[in-house]
Amino acid sequence: MNPRLIIKIFGLLILIIGISMIPSVLWIMYYNESGLNAFLYSIIICLVSGTLLFGLNYNVQKKISVKESFFIVGFGWIIAGLFGSLPFVFSGIFPTYSDAFFETVSGFTTTGSSVIKNVEIIGKGVLFWRSFTHWLGGMGIIVLFVALFPFLGASGRNLMKFESPGPIKSGIKPKTADTARYLWYIYFGFTFIEIILLALFGMNLFDSMCHSFGTMATGGFSTLNKSIAGYESVVIEFIITFFMICAGLNFSLYYSLLHCNYKTLFKDVEFKTYIGIISISILLTAAILYFNNYYNSFLTSLRYAGFQIVSILTTTGYATADFNQWPSFCKILLITLMFVGGCAGSTAGGMKVIRVIILYKFAKLQIFRTIYPNAIVTLKLENHPFPKHILFQILGFFVLAVLIFISGSLFVSLFNYDIETSASAVAATLWNIGPGIAKVGAIENFSFFPQPVKYVLSFFMIIGRLELFTVLVFLSPSFWRN
Amino acid sequence: MNPRLIIKIFGLLILIIGISMIPSVLWIMYYNESGLNAFLYSIIICLVSGTLLFGLNYNVQKKISVKESFFIVGFGWIIAGLFGSLPFVFSGIFPTYSDAFFETVSGFTTTGSSVIKNVEIIGKGVLFWRSFTHWLGGMGIIVLFVALFPFLGASGRNLMKFESPGPIKSGIKPKTADTARYLWYIYFGFTFIEIILLALFGMNLFDSMCHSFGTMATGGFSTLNKSIAGYESVVIEFIITFFMICAGLNFSLYYSLLHCNYKTLFKDVEFKTYIGIISISILLTAAILYFNNYYNSFLTSLRYAGFQIVSILTTTGYATADFNQWPSFCKILLITLMFVGGCAGSTAGGMKVIRVIILYKFAKLQIFRTIYPNAIVTLKLENHPFPKHILFQILGFFVLAVLIFISGSLFVSLFNYDIETSASAVAATLWNIGPGIAKVGAIENFSFFPQPVKYVLSFFMIIGRLELFTVLVFLSPSFWRN
Repeated sequence: MNPRLIIKIFGLLILIIGISMIPSVLWIMYYNESGLNAFLYSIIICLVSGTLLFGLNYNVQKKISVKESFFIVGFGWIIAGLFGSLPFVFSGIFPTYSDAFFETVSGFTTTGSSVIKNVEIIGKGVLFWRSFTHWLGGMGIIVLFVALFPFLGASGRNLMKFESPGPIKSGIKPKTADTARYLWYIYFGFTFIEIILLALFGMNLFDSMCHSFGTMATGGFSTLNKSIAGYESVVIEFIITFFMICAGLNFSLYYSLLHCNYKTLFKDVEFKTYIGIISISILLTAAILYFNNYYNSFLTSLRYAGFQIVSILTTTGYATADFNQWPSFCKILLITLMFVGGCAGSTAGGMKVIRVIILYKFAKLQIFRTIYPNAIVTLKLENHPFPKHILFQILGFFVLAVLIFISGSLFVSLFNYDIETSASAVAATLWNIGPGIAKVGAIENFSFFPQPVKYVLSFFMIIGRLELFTVLVFLSPSFWRN
Repeated sequence: MNPRLIIKIFGLLILIIGISMIPSVLWIMYYNESGLNAFLYSIIICLVSGTLLFGLNYNVQKKISVKESFFIVGFGWIIAGLFGSLPFVFSGIFPTYSDAFFETVSGFTTTGSSVIKNVEIIGKGVLFWRSFTHWLGGMGIIVLFVALFPFLGASGRNLMKFESPGPIKSGIKPKTADTARYLWYIYFGFTFIEIILLALFGMNLFDSMCHSFGTMATGGFSTLNKSIAGYESVVIEFIITFFMICAGLNFSLYYSLLHCNYKTLFKDVEFKTYIGIISISILLTAAILYFNNYYNSFLTSLRYAGFQIVSILTTTGYATADFNQWPSFCKILLITLMFVGGCAGSTAGGMKVIRVIILYKFAKLQIFRTIYPNAIVTLKLENHPFPKHILFQILGFFVLAVLIFISGSLFVSLFNYDIETSASAVAATLWNIGPGIAKVGAIENFSFFPQPVKYVLSFFMIIGRLELFTVLVFLSPSFWRN
């Protein structure tokens, strides 16, 4: 490992974070708020330390090894959490540092779990930064990085691979930096359109920007205590639902669509399954809500079920209803969807739909093999044999996910929280959702947890965002051996 | 498929069940109870229909195909449930047939979940039959069958394979019938010693027999409403704990021990892990109970933690404490242990320790493969490469287990039970434990569930007892194709 190279790259990362804080300064000036100093201090610290770390290590080789890539991505997210938390620290809105770190990591990892009890008394500058961390983290800080600094060349590929969601990568463009830049264009485009639509249908510009960041990054931070429920507007809910679905789709599909390759969409098994899961879950939930008299018409049931199912499956976490009060069938379904998540190559968290498809196909194949032990059959996806090493990776991912989920729930329960709170707090952070159920339900927040729990949950957010392996490699002694 | 052969074998099975009811008649006579007719009717029905089914299909070929074996084992357990429920039906202790079926299947599958609210007012004959179904099901009705009817020859091997717990079979004896008989000898021996010990230390002969059946089969039906807590005796708890641990061990280890091959025991990874899981879980639980002031000394905490951890891990389900009142850490740990279960080749349910070991090793290997994608490494168990097809089977088992658990919880929650009740009722029946938590906790029972839930949970008990695949093959269309 080459420490000078790693430090140099971390310097660049800190610079980007510092520059990203500038829009908040503009909002503070626009709203004529106090709290300017908090941002000025933060920006100065980031720019100075970034420049120093980058400048002092200027003439190093540019080839990054596999291990260095893991290190940069894994620790890069912790560094982002540390430097990104500065505005929270200087504005003094949190009682302990663990809160500031939790909120920042929750932002960057697009989790959206909050430790702020009353967001409506928080300054616009801080709120904007909070939502902007979502947007930066959504398509990936490192992906942004690769896009901005093409000098990394082929080494950028590993950096992107270890950060990007989903087991299958289809190289859209021959050059890694081109792919990264292209992904950010689409991401930017969607966000831009959503901002305009939300502003047209009743939100002010500030709110529409914050909520668009939260939607397209599948983050979930809101500027209202009641989240999207506060607007009481079917149109706004509909717009956000539509863009959440878009954010949960594989972004390489948009590339095909832009090139008028419409067939790809309807051939794509993950796309079809994703839409299928959404439709069936909404119908089931709406039916249960309606027949249990939660809402007085089936259409109203559809409205709330639709928003909540999409919000949870895409791991956004916005709320229009306190689903903690819903029948347990709906709650178990929502928790299950937390584990499923969006599509590979989207900004969503969770295990990803493609992994669930492969696991299901694999289980079916094993039943077949039980009946015909001597039959030679292979797992196929879209009529192509599925590579065995990726199958193994997905199976390993699943086993690790369950292990982490159980250990995490055990850890949180040590502090005497009930099972639903402990387990759903872990699921909601590990899969980057936001709210869970019980004490961390839709109308609650994470502020009551003791500091160790806040740090561990922040760690889970990063594990989940980087899809387990990129963080877990650090726990393996073989990583540290030469 | 050869229907005449299958019917003939089912005839034999019904005959065995009829004959097994005779001891209950003796207890009724001994205690001078009413209720003799219920058993006489049941015995007559079993003997007559068994003889008819067997006799009418006497001259059929004896070779059993793989598919026929699946069919015999899978439906054999349902037939056992149907005919075994007759004494409950004729004694009229249950309001609906679903209760009688549930209680019988819970007995045969050694689950031990009960729908009887007050066992202490039930006649001794019925109670004995209830516990005796545990004992018959523990080592396997079909295994007993293969032991009794060596004429099945090599065909018995498949029957045993599809019924016996655990992914790895070590052929102890060259002949299947010999292996089956030998397993029953050891099983009988342990039960006999436990009966004597329990009778020596304060139980009457009837109770000591019933509880020994429940222990060695890892069943859990008791003759007291308070289960083992009713005896308030440390010695009895200790004896039962010891025999539960023995029942959860791979029975082929006893074969090695009988042949003075002591090294096998300490080389056996599953044995060591099993003992390790028990020790660590007991210490953790005792510590948590003690520090949360549940019991006033660490020794008392150890006593209750020890019994309960062993009872749940071995999937027995006896209780000496209402663990539903314990801190959530202990409850999450207990639910996790429900999924782990005992060793392969034991009478215990659950996923089995060996599967958990393989899953853990596999996950670790995948982390290693992430760091060194080109390294050629294989999964090893006790220094031998682990066969890939068994690894696939275990991974498939795990995926299916999670799928069934989630679908089951969703189904039960449809009837508006809380999440903990719905999920733990499924875990407790699927893994053949007995009690769960919340409304199906240690001091509760399953009687309040509506009939569809009782049937579905009975079905889960059979799925779990036959280790998923043997039942799930029937859901595959390819099973029914030629």
